[in-house]
Amino acid sequence: MRCIRLTLAYDGTNYLGWQSQTKGRTVQGVIENAIEQITGVHSRVLASGRTDAGVHALGQVAAFRTESHLTTETMVKALNAVLPEDLVVLAAEEVSLAFHPIRDAQRKRYRYLIDDGTIRPVLFRHFVWHYPRRLDVERMQQAAAKLVGKHDFAAFETSGAKRKTTVRSIYELTVGRACPSVPSLISLEVEADGFLYNMVRNIVGSLVEIGRGARPPEWIEEVLLSRDRRRAGPTAPPEGLFLVSVTYNNLPTISAPTPWFPCPSSPAKKENA
Amino acid sequence: MRCIRLTLAYDGTNYLGWQSQTKGRTVQGVIENAIEQITGVHSRVLASGRTDAGVHALGQVAAFRTESHLTTETMVKALNAVLPEDLVVLAAEEVSLAFHPIRDAQRKRYRYLIDDGTIRPVLFRHFVWHYPRRLDVERMQQAAAKLVGKHDFAAFETSGAKRKTTVRSIYELTVGRACPSVPSLISLEVEADGFLYNMVRNIVGSLVEIGRGARPPEWIEEVLLSRDRRRAGPTAPPEGLFLVSVTYNNLPTISAPTPWFPCPSSPAKKENA
Repeated sequence: MRCIRLTLAYDGTNYLGWQSQTKGRTVQGVIENAIEQITGVHSRVLASGRTDAGVHALGQVAAFRTESHLTTETMVKALNAVLPEDLVVLAAEEVSLAFHPIRDAQRKRYRYLIDDGTIRPVLFRHFVWHYPRRLDVERMQQAAAKLVGKHDFAAFETSGAKRKTTVRSIYELTVGRACPSVPSLISLEVEADGFLYNMVRNIVGSLVEIGRGARPPEWIEEVLLSRDRRRAGPTAPPEGLFLVSVTYNNLPTISAPTPWFPCPSSPAKKENA
Repeated sequence: MRCIRLTLAYDGTNYLGWQSQTKGRTVQGVIENAIEQITGVHSRVLASGRTDAGVHALGQVAAFRTESHLTTETMVKALNAVLPEDLVVLAAEEVSLAFHPIRDAQRKRYRYLIDDGTIRPVLFRHFVWHYPRRLDVERMQQAAAKLVGKHDFAAFETSGAKRKTTVRSIYELTVGRACPSVPSLISLEVEADGFLYNMVRNIVGSLVEIGRGARPPEWIEEVLLSRDRRRAGPTAPPEGLFLVSVTYNNLPTISAPTPWFPCPSSPAKKENA
């Protein structure tokens, strides 16, 4: 028996999210079908975490067990030949049978894109939240800085999730107009040891309250300390969210490059570990 | 009676091209319906030129006549409220009744994107030609330089078109790896006083023959001088092609910004005239 780690990129627009459901198209369902097509056997695929409907991935990590003797290189080619055009395998490695994509994940990185121009974007409409009023990015950045560090992020967790602890460490959280050729494009980039349910989208929704002037930057601290979801801003829509990469000890961190966030000075690009 | 000039951006993926047909969704049909919805009267809309099925526009120019007294600002908002998400009006101006979007166009600019990485692109799959073998961009650039200037481009015109002359002037034609964050992305940018049918896609198809090593850079001159379409390379697919902008005397040149081609040093951004 072998354990294969996959790194996946997908356009989440036409998926009901990661997890298999009795009805509807999911990333898990599509990748499990593809694996069955190339190995002849159904394998259960576990991801580093679920992504919701409409959320994209540039470097989702998943793993499955198989008796197949195909090389990982052949697996990548064979899977990509049968997968639909909105889902691709970037890489595959054989890892220890003890590998667990959720438990072993050290860090995750997400990106969230907002377009605050008055004209709605057409070509990248599935990849940004169009918010048609000018946002003050400096205020958002000031507030974002207050969330960096080890905190109880319960205020930014959509209820319903069951977690042992709501404490997480954010290593980096930046907000900026990242693309000189698209002045209305705002990118939020965040890396943490883990994320609560809807945490990035709830942080974005709260930062937008500050950016549009409804709240002062200091308000984010009040929200954080309250640990009360009702104090935070609304949940930002899924289409602006990308799972950029997941980092594991002693394994490469892989992420599909995109021209969405092109500044050379940006922290968006992850090098292989 | 007033004449209104519109600048449009669209994702051509789900259109059968510009021109109205008895069956199927076209840009002309959708924009004419929207104008009828906001003015109550059907108006014929004329574009600077047709785009084919799957071809995108960042700054297509079109014009129509109307008795409506709506301000152009109100027209932009009202049209964008009724147009589908893959088509947007960037700007509208009242122009002289003598304005003719085809005859009066001074210059047109197109962009063509190729991804020559081995892994197919997922997020921008509708906006590039995925060519999964490494291309030599320097050779392509050498060949491209030979096409700049006033030439008879008959060899790059798909037959069937009826033109008085096949002579055109290319003012600029550059090929490069334009995006440091996506090393596999190749952008071709071309500006001319006009283009023959499929001219950009036929030039791209020929330059790819050179880039992949099947032909030397000098071959492009043979093809040009032959004026024989059968000597050129195949027609590149539509999804990589963008009509970037159309320039008219004494009118602004407008183009939707995109993060596809982000190099500050690139000639991609057009300033308003």
